[in-house]
Amino acid sequence: MPVSRGWHDRAMTDLNGLTIGILGGTGDQGKGLARRFALAGHPVLIGSRSAQRAKDAAASIGSGASGDENAAVATQADIVIVAVPYDGHKALLESLRAELAGKIVVDCVNPIGFDKQGAYALPVAEGSAAQQAAAVLPDTRVVAAFHHVSAVLLMDPAVDEVELDVLVLGDDREATDTVQALAAVIPGVRGVYGGRLRNAHQIEALTANIISVNRRYKAHAGLRITDV
Amino acid sequence: MPVSRGWHDRAMTDLNGLTIGILGGTGDQGKGLARRFALAGHPVLIGSRSAQRAKDAAASIGSGASGDENAAVATQADIVIVAVPYDGHKALLESLRAELAGKIVVDCVNPIGFDKQGAYALPVAEGSAAQQAAAVLPDTRVVAAFHHVSAVLLMDPAVDEVELDVLVLGDDREATDTVQALAAVIPGVRGVYGGRLRNAHQIEALTANIISVNRRYKAHAGLRITDV
Repeated sequence: MPVSRGWHDRAMTDLNGLTIGILGGTGDQGKGLARRFALAGHPVLIGSRSAQRAKDAAASIGSGASGDENAAVATQADIVIVAVPYDGHKALLESLRAELAGKIVVDCVNPIGFDKQGAYALPVAEGSAAQQAAAVLPDTRVVAAFHHVSAVLLMDPAVDEVELDVLVLGDDREATDTVQALAAVIPGVRGVYGGRLRNAHQIEALTANIISVNRRYKAHAGLRITDV
Repeated sequence: MPVSRGWHDRAMTDLNGLTIGILGGTGDQGKGLARRFALAGHPVLIGSRSAQRAKDAAASIGSGASGDENAAVATQADIVIVAVPYDGHKALLESLRAELAGKIVVDCVNPIGFDKQGAYALPVAEGSAAQQAAAVLPDTRVVAAFHHVSAVLLMDPAVDEVELDVLVLGDDREATDTVQALAAVIPGVRGVYGGRLRNAHQIEALTANIISVNRRYKAHAGLRITDV
């Protein structure tokens, strides 16, 4: 499939000087994203409940990443990625409302449950984890993105290009443009606008289908959007 | 992106002699699918409330397709695709319970609403249109597929290859294998297993996001699944 990039260059936003913070950055997904952003030369702060575990995770990925407690990361970062497990999602964001005010918060949390038949989407009262974040953080611009990026591929030093598109959803054009540009710093990745925040539920829930694909085909599946 | 096909050939099911019926085959999506299946050499029956409109639609696509009332098509076809608008979905299937018993029913209905902010997913009491079909038709094997195939591309005589993957969901392996093979008769298309029927909602709802992509990028967007 030919991947055209012309449209994307036009939307490119200047990320120079922006510090990327990752709450829950000691988990697989958060650490994988941190690694790729650090490799691309961005200042990266890994957040965790434990400053020591955050520092250890940062040391393990190298490239100048550093680690601290979630609250310190939320205070210092310009763009804050939320990569915590869903069951701690709401409480963490409520505890960081002041620190996150005025910032772009990128929610990549997937509310997914598992049983004997595999993965399935959990109901979320607000509609989606991203809408829950927006409800809890009225003074931030919440963007939903990075739901389907394989942590295995992000961490694999043999994978130079991560061949997938990141769907970026949100109601603020400047914020979604910024996060599209952030996705595109990972070689191989495009950030593609994917709709308003009210349509985030199905993007989060789609992770259950991707898990099904991975099981059936022994793959680390992702999405490409065709004709874009 | 390299598209590997080896795994797919292994899953290929023999569709020889199977007649494809399309309920709501006079709509854009149904007619486009009918056209591609007929071009691939399969017997295709277009169904509609009006036999005359079905015959007119069949004549317009040629390639040996024929048309009749929905009930006659449901009786004669081996695989029945449901491509009606969501608001007539449940009533139509209830009226065809006897005709559809024992068959594979392929639901490609997208419960989507529109307002000033664009498209959004409609709630479905059963979870999804596909689960609604399964609830109404306990004696059929319901498969969900073909949700994101651009009718414009299907109808365009200049488009030889439709570059996208069709996610195929269902709880019966033989039925999903058959529908994956059916998807693959359209040049360029792969049928990729996408999970159980309980995970159909987000696939149907994802159509709202694809509409958002189409508006932003002036595209006829579709999905490719990477690493498969």
